[in-house]
Amino acid sequence: MPELRKDPVIGRWVIISTERAKRPSDFKLEPDPKSNVNECPFCEGREAMTPPEIRAYRNDGSIRDAPGWRIRVVPNKFPALRIEGHLDRRGEGMFDTMTGIGAHEVIIETPQHFDDLAKLAQPSVEELIWMYHDRSLDLKKDPRFKYVMIFKNKGLAAGASLEHTHSQLIALPVVPKRVSEEMVGSREYYSFRERCVFCDILRQELKDGVRVVAENDGFAAIEPFAPRAPFETWIIPKVHNPRFENAQKQEYEQLARILSQVLKRMAAALNDPPYNYMIHTTPFHHEDIPFYHWHLEIMPKLVKFAGFEWGTGFYINPTPPEQAAEFLREARVE
Amino acid sequence: MPELRKDPVIGRWVIISTERAKRPSDFKLEPDPKSNVNECPFCEGREAMTPPEIRAYRNDGSIRDAPGWRIRVVPNKFPALRIEGHLDRRGEGMFDTMTGIGAHEVIIETPQHFDDLAKLAQPSVEELIWMYHDRSLDLKKDPRFKYVMIFKNKGLAAGASLEHTHSQLIALPVVPKRVSEEMVGSREYYSFRERCVFCDILRQELKDGVRVVAENDGFAAIEPFAPRAPFETWIIPKVHNPRFENAQKQEYEQLARILSQVLKRMAAALNDPPYNYMIHTTPFHHEDIPFYHWHLEIMPKLVKFAGFEWGTGFYINPTPPEQAAEFLREARVE
Repeated sequence: MPELRKDPVIGRWVIISTERAKRPSDFKLEPDPKSNVNECPFCEGREAMTPPEIRAYRNDGSIRDAPGWRIRVVPNKFPALRIEGHLDRRGEGMFDTMTGIGAHEVIIETPQHFDDLAKLAQPSVEELIWMYHDRSLDLKKDPRFKYVMIFKNKGLAAGASLEHTHSQLIALPVVPKRVSEEMVGSREYYSFRERCVFCDILRQELKDGVRVVAENDGFAAIEPFAPRAPFETWIIPKVHNPRFENAQKQEYEQLARILSQVLKRMAAALNDPPYNYMIHTTPFHHEDIPFYHWHLEIMPKLVKFAGFEWGTGFYINPTPPEQAAEFLREARVE
Repeated sequence: MPELRKDPVIGRWVIISTERAKRPSDFKLEPDPKSNVNECPFCEGREAMTPPEIRAYRNDGSIRDAPGWRIRVVPNKFPALRIEGHLDRRGEGMFDTMTGIGAHEVIIETPQHFDDLAKLAQPSVEELIWMYHDRSLDLKKDPRFKYVMIFKNKGLAAGASLEHTHSQLIALPVVPKRVSEEMVGSREYYSFRERCVFCDILRQELKDGVRVVAENDGFAAIEPFAPRAPFETWIIPKVHNPRFENAQKQEYEQLARILSQVLKRMAAALNDPPYNYMIHTTPFHHEDIPFYHWHLEIMPKLVKFAGFEWGTGFYINPTPPEQAAEFLREARVE
């Protein structure tokens, strides 16, 4: 059974994932690239190679775990957390621990073997966003979960072990540290100014323009003022909304359009970089709050983080965001 | 001029390092390994290839920037921060920024071309620790600096761009986020229990024994209860002391011994892994506090961090620390 453990100094929870337990000899620096299309377990027709599907958008007449799907959600074969069991918190002397209850799902974005979401047609990206929405609402019903983290790893260097384009989600029994930090920070800002910090950022960025990458009626894509890494990009809804899963239909369409556009620009400007993205939203079972504002963060994986970043939580970024925004705006996309 | 910028949501400072400014075409996923011994700028006899030395431990009769040194400190050729200039804080609309004042030094650990500190003889490791001490005290005199982060990147995957074994330090005009978090967490623990959290961790770990890797009169090396990554190891002094730079002579000797032993065990058990280590200590110009306890954290680089870790600050660790401690205890070292 995996276990959640809390660092007694800074309160960070980690997952000790015994399902994947590794001996020293199991660590290879580069995992084998599994790009062989003929063996890809995510391709249409190989549904038997994954655990049974949790949910799929399917063409009329097609059946579960068989071809005919457009987007398919399956449990992660090597889950970091387990869905079955009770939440059990306990102490071990001075330490705090919790059973590793959670969901770990893989969202296969297309039945065809594409290696990047940037290459999918607009309707597929839109359906992907809807699947994020549907899975969030479904997992929200489980009272054991406090948060669903939706994320994507693209490319080996960004942690993807399969090439076929896919997203993941992890439902957690605790609110993760990064999200709590953002909640605390934006609550402080709100208590001082009675305005949402993200709304203020949007206003200033859209006025200045220098860090804006793209914009449509519903969203702005910007390089944040203090990015951790080159070409870090945030996609922020223009209308204040604390929760991703509560957006309007039109917003999801606009999100799909801007996400697709930003990923295409990154692919063009940075030569198909590996990247991660993740959605930050208000934790479940939390009153609706005026100070937090959901958004999506994209991190292309262009530099290595080393001892300094680990030790300090302080990042050295060699590309000013104003310059990154300019490169992305100028990238030639169809 | 490099610039420090503060994230308006969570208060994290980043360095926008214009000296190293990078265009999209500058990013290669793997830097070229510069392991050619015949061109290594850190080897004895090639002192002219580095900026002039700041300090060195030298054999009698040898002169500055010439052979005859045992440990040599030089400015980083591509510094993240600049030593000259005034600290200038200002706002940019809602954002906060500061001139990128700081020191960025390289500590060359040996005149011979070794690729790991684990391979150096005991007296060299001891002198290295003394150099950390001397540089800390020297930089502490500069009122612009609030913190000196001493760290080491070993191996390409851990961010080292040169093979010749070396450490680095960065003096900062702000206290880095990770350190503040530890200060806040340990202060809270102290206000509740009136005991240092690190002292309590040590007591419990030495009693339990399962996560102890090594021990001597002055230090214990343990796998923390909630490690972020496999084989994360902390070296903690047994006597409470908030500051690394204020330790006793004997403690530095004992630190050198245990550090050397732990690195040898890692090299043996994990086949010479890339790794980072960093020293966490109380910020300068801070009263001496009963709740914080300096220590050294070692992170072998065995797994990739991906979207989930980025998005959450929540880590999935496939190796329970009890098992990691056992592997390291059992590793055969001379």
